[in-house]
Amino acid sequence: MHTVTVNLGAASYGIRIGTDVLAGVGEFVAGKFTKVLVVTQEKIFDMHGQSLVDGLKGNGVDFDTAIIPDGETSKSLREAEKIFTRAIEFGLDRKSAVIALGGGVVGDLAGFVAATFMRGIGLIQIPTTLLAQVDSSVGGKTAVNHPLGKNLIGAFHQPRAVFIDLNCLATLPEREIKSGLGEVVKYGVICDEKFFAYLESNAEKILQRDVKTLAHIVKRSCELKAEVVAADEREAGLRRILNFGHTLGHAVEEQTHYTTFRHGEAVAIGMVGAARISHELGKTSAANVQRLENLLRRFDMVTTCAGLEADKLYAVTLRDKKVIGGAVNWVLMCGFGYIEICTDVPESVVKKVFGGLTS
Amino acid sequence: MHTVTVNLGAASYGIRIGTDVLAGVGEFVAGKFTKVLVVTQEKIFDMHGQSLVDGLKGNGVDFDTAIIPDGETSKSLREAEKIFTRAIEFGLDRKSAVIALGGGVVGDLAGFVAATFMRGIGLIQIPTTLLAQVDSSVGGKTAVNHPLGKNLIGAFHQPRAVFIDLNCLATLPEREIKSGLGEVVKYGVICDEKFFAYLESNAEKILQRDVKTLAHIVKRSCELKAEVVAADEREAGLRRILNFGHTLGHAVEEQTHYTTFRHGEAVAIGMVGAARISHELGKTSAANVQRLENLLRRFDMVTTCAGLEADKLYAVTLRDKKVIGGAVNWVLMCGFGYIEICTDVPESVVKKVFGGLTS
Repeated sequence: MHTVTVNLGAASYGIRIGTDVLAGVGEFVAGKFTKVLVVTQEKIFDMHGQSLVDGLKGNGVDFDTAIIPDGETSKSLREAEKIFTRAIEFGLDRKSAVIALGGGVVGDLAGFVAATFMRGIGLIQIPTTLLAQVDSSVGGKTAVNHPLGKNLIGAFHQPRAVFIDLNCLATLPEREIKSGLGEVVKYGVICDEKFFAYLESNAEKILQRDVKTLAHIVKRSCELKAEVVAADEREAGLRRILNFGHTLGHAVEEQTHYTTFRHGEAVAIGMVGAARISHELGKTSAANVQRLENLLRRFDMVTTCAGLEADKLYAVTLRDKKVIGGAVNWVLMCGFGYIEICTDVPESVVKKVFGGLTS
Repeated sequence: MHTVTVNLGAASYGIRIGTDVLAGVGEFVAGKFTKVLVVTQEKIFDMHGQSLVDGLKGNGVDFDTAIIPDGETSKSLREAEKIFTRAIEFGLDRKSAVIALGGGVVGDLAGFVAATFMRGIGLIQIPTTLLAQVDSSVGGKTAVNHPLGKNLIGAFHQPRAVFIDLNCLATLPEREIKSGLGEVVKYGVICDEKFFAYLESNAEKILQRDVKTLAHIVKRSCELKAEVVAADEREAGLRRILNFGHTLGHAVEEQTHYTTFRHGEAVAIGMVGAARISHELGKTSAANVQRLENLLRRFDMVTTCAGLEADKLYAVTLRDKKVIGGAVNWVLMCGFGYIEICTDVPESVVKKVFGGLTS
């Protein structure tokens, strides 16, 4: 088992990565919290709940379970209110904790509940998808959706611990793996060319789900994210580089009503868009853009969004959460590990690149 | 004009106290925030909105107004969602701010919106009631209610500034003044015997709303609260003394369905209860309890809750937000300025005191 530490002073926490780590959650929470509410989904609980529950029971933890429906629509204030009700009826208090067992939807929603119940209680993240393991479970972002936009309601609330069980990846549908790989590739682009090269050299092993290789990419992704988050917890500066690929990615997700692409797949398209914009502005070479596109294709990821309209995508980027004072904060690549935030990308450049991706 | 500073490192902020301070809000927010959403109620906006609006316009601030209905029922996730909608439609971004113009309901709800919109945006508190001026606008507690309990959903989110206009107190209904005085007396009990003595010596002037006297009690209350909050922002320790009178106070409010007593009035009854429990346990003299009750009566405040049932009140205290691991955290007085948190007050003592207050 590896442990990656997120250094945030008194709020520091560990990310435990390994096989069969779920059984250890009970020992971790025992004595730390008065009661624990496990938030999860039915299928996930059926697949991964048993060893968690055994560990909780074995350590005498007073716990209850709240099952939420599948799908992004669960990330709502309505669903949060139902969990609050459950929490109150079960008797959670200020020294209690929420355990999020599941993918990004569970983690974001349960995290929001933990952030806002009695002004913040404990949170344990147990991400069961590759995407959640390398991205949403680390860093303290929690959120629910508003009918007018995704993740618009939320809070920063760091977990007390993250438990990543690599066994969960064995049964994950292929598209979920691809979605996670979108974010994994992102870390290589924004932080670490050596890691990017590792992904190029080990693409086959990754797709075959070789456990040692998966362990490395999850660990390295968490390390890189932990470094960025430790330097800028509240996204005042450096942390914004994590949004590489997300401006166009979010627009693609919205324009396809979140039904066509998984988040990481949309981010892949978004990274291609951001890289091409970077090249148009003379910030990076055509070879760098090509290298990124090649790796994404080796992971069998779509790198265009044919059929969508460039003008509409452009309009959506102007409503992005990263817009400040009317200006889109474009995260651009200069080289692998060299990122620049740019607030004055000309409309014509963006539309030209979007045109190329949609035709 | 006085300025009281709440020292919280990078999150420090000033509380500006004076007459005609509302006009200065525009100058403060201009240039700091991209857009501003004023959350208020119709009557309050009619009474106090003009000089705020003039100041915003005069300084070229891009602002909009969201009017919420009167009453505690507005402190809900539903109402928060409506304000989120308004905020999105108006185009608030991460560098925008919410201005809360009103009493505790407005401040708590607008504060919760600012705490959770895009994971936290700017917040300016303009409390217009004595209670909000001396209590809820300072310290960063925000909340909405859950059908099963008050203030169960919320977050800590410090304002960027607090503007207290003493002119607002001139038109405040008498019961609102009394409600505020409950919390003012509390500061004397928990922090500062000299201030308690000042209240005893100046009770008449306070009731006559002498501006200089009101200015002093607001300023001193804010100073005392600011000191406590600066020492313990997240209520891990010292800050719990601010809950003096609140365990029974909340139970009285709940048992009367929040219709009979104003918050500060219920806190007054709660303080008498806590003081009597302190005396029963031998922690304080009968004279101290009497001195507290006498001052409350000079302010024409009810100090008992005849008609309620002691057993039911007791049951409610066990569900209090301050319960940890099943134990009520009683805030008890040893003397003026000497407070003790006690987790093992015998049931018989609590019920005896409650019995005396309800008979």
